[in-house]
Amino acid sequence: MNLFKKQNNFYRAGWITFLLVFALTAFFISCSDQQQEAAPAESDGGVSTGLPADASAIAAARNLTPDDIVAALKTYVPTGQHDDYIMFSSGGHAGQVFVIGLPSMRLLKTIGVFTPEPWQGWGYGSEETMAILNNGQADGEQTVMWGDTHHPALSETAGDYDGQYLFINDKAHARVAVIDLRDFETKQIIKNPIAINDHGGTFVTPDTDWVIEGGQYAAPLGWEYASLDEYAEDYRGMVTFWKFDRDSGRIDYDASFAMELPPYWQDLCDAGKRVSEGWVFCNSFNTEMATGGIESGEPPFEAGASQRDMDYLHVINMDKAIGVAAAGQTIEVNGFPVISLDTSVAEGLLYFIPEPKSPHGVDITPGGEYMVISGKLDPHTTVFSFEKIQAAIADGNFETDQYGVPILDFDAVLEAQIELGLGPLHTQFDDKGYAYTSLFLESTVARWALGGPYGEMHEEEDWSLVGKQSVHYNVGHIAAAEGDTVSPDGTYLVSLNKWAVDRFANVGPLLPQNFQLIDIGSPGEQMQLLYDMPIGVGEPHYAQIIKGDKLSPWEVYPEIGWDPGIQAVNPEAPMSGEEKVVRNGNEVEIWMTAVRSHFTPEHVEINQGDHVIWHITNVERAYDATHGFSLPGYNIQLSLEPGETATFEFDATEDGVFSYYCSEFCSALHLEMVGYLLVKP
Amino acid sequence: MNLFKKQNNFYRAGWITFLLVFALTAFFISCSDQQQEAAPAESDGGVSTGLPADASAIAAARNLTPDDIVAALKTYVPTGQHDDYIMFSSGGHAGQVFVIGLPSMRLLKTIGVFTPEPWQGWGYGSEETMAILNNGQADGEQTVMWGDTHHPALSETAGDYDGQYLFINDKAHARVAVIDLRDFETKQIIKNPIAINDHGGTFVTPDTDWVIEGGQYAAPLGWEYASLDEYAEDYRGMVTFWKFDRDSGRIDYDASFAMELPPYWQDLCDAGKRVSEGWVFCNSFNTEMATGGIESGEPPFEAGASQRDMDYLHVINMDKAIGVAAAGQTIEVNGFPVISLDTSVAEGLLYFIPEPKSPHGVDITPGGEYMVISGKLDPHTTVFSFEKIQAAIADGNFETDQYGVPILDFDAVLEAQIELGLGPLHTQFDDKGYAYTSLFLESTVARWALGGPYGEMHEEEDWSLVGKQSVHYNVGHIAAAEGDTVSPDGTYLVSLNKWAVDRFANVGPLLPQNFQLIDIGSPGEQMQLLYDMPIGVGEPHYAQIIKGDKLSPWEVYPEIGWDPGIQAVNPEAPMSGEEKVVRNGNEVEIWMTAVRSHFTPEHVEINQGDHVIWHITNVERAYDATHGFSLPGYNIQLSLEPGETATFEFDATEDGVFSYYCSEFCSALHLEMVGYLLVKP
Repeated sequence: MNLFKKQNNFYRAGWITFLLVFALTAFFISCSDQQQEAAPAESDGGVSTGLPADASAIAAARNLTPDDIVAALKTYVPTGQHDDYIMFSSGGHAGQVFVIGLPSMRLLKTIGVFTPEPWQGWGYGSEETMAILNNGQADGEQTVMWGDTHHPALSETAGDYDGQYLFINDKAHARVAVIDLRDFETKQIIKNPIAINDHGGTFVTPDTDWVIEGGQYAAPLGWEYASLDEYAEDYRGMVTFWKFDRDSGRIDYDASFAMELPPYWQDLCDAGKRVSEGWVFCNSFNTEMATGGIESGEPPFEAGASQRDMDYLHVINMDKAIGVAAAGQTIEVNGFPVISLDTSVAEGLLYFIPEPKSPHGVDITPGGEYMVISGKLDPHTTVFSFEKIQAAIADGNFETDQYGVPILDFDAVLEAQIELGLGPLHTQFDDKGYAYTSLFLESTVARWALGGPYGEMHEEEDWSLVGKQSVHYNVGHIAAAEGDTVSPDGTYLVSLNKWAVDRFANVGPLLPQNFQLIDIGSPGEQMQLLYDMPIGVGEPHYAQIIKGDKLSPWEVYPEIGWDPGIQAVNPEAPMSGEEKVVRNGNEVEIWMTAVRSHFTPEHVEINQGDHVIWHITNVERAYDATHGFSLPGYNIQLSLEPGETATFEFDATEDGVFSYYCSEFCSALHLEMVGYLLVKP
Repeated sequence: MNLFKKQNNFYRAGWITFLLVFALTAFFISCSDQQQEAAPAESDGGVSTGLPADASAIAAARNLTPDDIVAALKTYVPTGQHDDYIMFSSGGHAGQVFVIGLPSMRLLKTIGVFTPEPWQGWGYGSEETMAILNNGQADGEQTVMWGDTHHPALSETAGDYDGQYLFINDKAHARVAVIDLRDFETKQIIKNPIAINDHGGTFVTPDTDWVIEGGQYAAPLGWEYASLDEYAEDYRGMVTFWKFDRDSGRIDYDASFAMELPPYWQDLCDAGKRVSEGWVFCNSFNTEMATGGIESGEPPFEAGASQRDMDYLHVINMDKAIGVAAAGQTIEVNGFPVISLDTSVAEGLLYFIPEPKSPHGVDITPGGEYMVISGKLDPHTTVFSFEKIQAAIADGNFETDQYGVPILDFDAVLEAQIELGLGPLHTQFDDKGYAYTSLFLESTVARWALGGPYGEMHEEEDWSLVGKQSVHYNVGHIAAAEGDTVSPDGTYLVSLNKWAVDRFANVGPLLPQNFQLIDIGSPGEQMQLLYDMPIGVGEPHYAQIIKGDKLSPWEVYPEIGWDPGIQAVNPEAPMSGEEKVVRNGNEVEIWMTAVRSHFTPEHVEINQGDHVIWHITNVERAYDATHGFSLPGYNIQLSLEPGETATFEFDATEDGVFSYYCSEFCSALHLEMVGYLLVKP
């Protein structure tokens, strides 16, 4: 039963209004765009032979130093021009991903991932987004609506970022999310069934066949209760290999598996590349298996987990592990296949290398030859050789740890140790044979010269410190342009500083972090600090930086009625002229469209207690013609991009008059884009 | 019963580690700070007589025009220096407030308001934040966890921003929030008991005695069900006056009241100032009382609400209304005092002035003499004189609308009409006798010369268009530095453009908005576009800009054990050395402290089914030494700024092993700042 009374001329009149307003708007957009077009730079005139007459005076008035002026000119992106690089940054315990342009360091977008975010309609009613968030829940009564995003990983083809997908983990709950870079929206969240938290993820293999998620704080597999007194026996670490299906753009849960690891706290991982492709490297801390207990007079974790000089780099033969898992040599934990530690040992899947204690970051050189590890409490960075690792494994003369895992001889696999300074943490690479390591305690970024095949790319001594750049303050990760690929760009590096202290205007006791952009384009000692970007929207951990021209997102959804949940037209999507309200018992189903500047229908009258299923399509095709849909009182907020369709359901528990309206300022008559939901008591 | 076994040397050992790490960190911070100190500008040397040698080459290589170079130099804020102005922007349906520095246009902070945000621990378990969010709920079964923030208002003293408080409304649910600018945190959310949505708020009176919240889409008072067929009889508009108690920093609900208004859709309001202090002005649209119904062949709202040439500016004698409310001449709606429309008419509280249809923004000149209104569909902006309004009221020769409200004669109160262009919307002011009006359809900002006492401040003809600045695209509100005060600064103006289209790198179908910074420091035609800031984190509506030196937030909370909910020390706050776990039946209460880099206790063992009350104090005093507290699986995430204490409660429904950890990267041993919650089945 269609509850509409009639369709007549007024409907068409609405369209005429819309067309007029739209045409007028389009005219002025194109018009003002021309007025504002940047004058071409005078190649041999104003710009190259002289700066504008008032430039010196402005610089003097603002107390800009020569370095400041250079930095300003290197980072300013004029109106209407686009940034060269796009950085995808984790949002830390904000649970989101931030999209930032370089060199301007402007926040272009936040992407809702583990935390609901109403601007983008993420987790506020739409069936698509609620299903993704619900899929990310563990069994039980609790619902978790935030995450602690740590390490984003761009999809790769042959070891280079390809701009198709982005992955990111949730440390707090051991989850992995998949973001589709056609529409910059989260498409999948998977809860790891064997661990309650993670850290060493996400990292992808060179063709994105696998997404790696390493563990963090040991717990019994499946995080079932066991006393800490039984730590060595019952607690375990893990690494999980998620199979990624590029065609569907989803992780294939059923084709994925994990490996049981000793209850050391696995930290960051990295996938081998080129010569080391097929292997995975994860470092660890707390190989002491300290269990804390400061309140009972035991050493606190910070002390207990720092007693030994060495922890273990985990060297994993991933290709072989895939075969072992495929052969069914697994146990099941919560129904998920896990290669037991005994099997890993028996099959030669896992080796350890002593590494300076409490490292953060194992970083593989662009050609895959070396594994760079920095123990936070050791002033050196340590470089292992993949070739030597292979030789040591072939040699087969091992000691083992208490779980029987072979320990390779440190000296046999060591390539170099370079003294960098205090608190070395994470390493990135460029195209000139340099590596860059963050030094947390010093608040510097060290540039150092690689050896081996990289030695001929620079003029410095192999494996030597070249220079340092001060940063403010307490740098965690660093991210270089295309820095995790087989061919880094060597243009920019961003220092992800954890403390800002006095660097920005005081905004209360909770401070932003400070992302500092550094020009690493010149060889030798010189690096130049270009820009300080406060991160007042979360607590990022790691970021990856991709060339902007590798991304080609949709401007609008490809067709009207597009369902971003399936990246295809939804055959049930409401279309113009087919809007209706249908009652079936106490279930009411609504098919609605949105266009500048009205919803159809504008009245929805139902009864208290009805169950309501509501579909809306934004039938616009114009770039940026997004409509929001807000239904007050029922926690419903959608963002409908041009062409998008969405569905939400609710029980009409509250009676009264509720004005639904367009929440995205869409046109001169945006405020008039409203309708009334009437719920009869 | 304290469950701890003993306290011994290891506890002190932890402190020693902390002190060493902290001292080292502090040393390097101070050290690297000195290295990085900006060289003083050479006042008669390098800077003023010549720019750096490579500046021209960099500008040429990056195709910067002379205008771009000037803009870069005017907006770049060197490392460690602070922005001159702070802009507080609404976040639209993100539900938050954004804090942005000018001229750099950097996002310094988001403030969680109506939407939970875990980075700042807003709405993820802490008793304080949950109580504020819960207080903002309407009665009924539904819980709303987002808002549509629209118009921020800084507290004022004698008509000038004083930097103490910020207010903001939630259009979707008719709510008002209070933010304390000592810690930049939301302290109160109030649900309006008579309306389901609002728009014309928040605006403050010159000494912040009252916070004004005007309505939007008419509904029966209390949004009770009534058929749209009874629109004229049963639906109503409203304006609410919230009494603000500066000492407690809270709205005093019991001292507040509202006024019933006709079911026109009230839009923006503004408080009178100086000569017009004590009066309030709200404009309106849909005085046609159109009820939509496109699906039934009725005119859609966009057409129906645009039929008449004039809507009504509401002129409200607020001072008199306060007296009427205080005298008890009110009715009650949901227990809240409301001055009925009949009483308003009888007491002379409310007058109408015809205004060009569908206006957005009624803006009072700095001296309070004029009310500036722009009808979006009229190319003129219209200026009414407060003096003439008073004379017309005194004259007493009115027509009335159908509700008996006196309508002042348009010509009698008109001061001027200035033809500006297409789609005029919102007006701001400077210190040179100019007004600025956004033109939505043209995508420009018009500068025009005021008359009256402002005429002698400029050289142009009074009440005349002076110049225009193109913006990109579709500007909604504009915000000028100190623009809503009695003494605007006349330095910067920000154009809050609703569409970005092609201005930034494509980040998928949902685009950022574009804030454009405009230099309005020079008189005459010239304005200069300085900067494009993408807003990729929400959909702002309005902003206010305050001089940075008017703000003096706390760097850390004043004392250890500080409870931001009461802005005082909480006597129950856990203190160092007094940590404990106490069981009482199946209720377990935990007193915990956090310091770099451990929690005390590190083990909490409870039984499934226990009810848990958990207190934590961050006992740090160092600037920026925030600790997060994440409890996976139970949706708990706190942000504990130095000195802060917080409490959360939960039922231990899930058994297993849960690693709680510090989610804010606090030190070199941050990863070791962890503990185990063991829930026995």
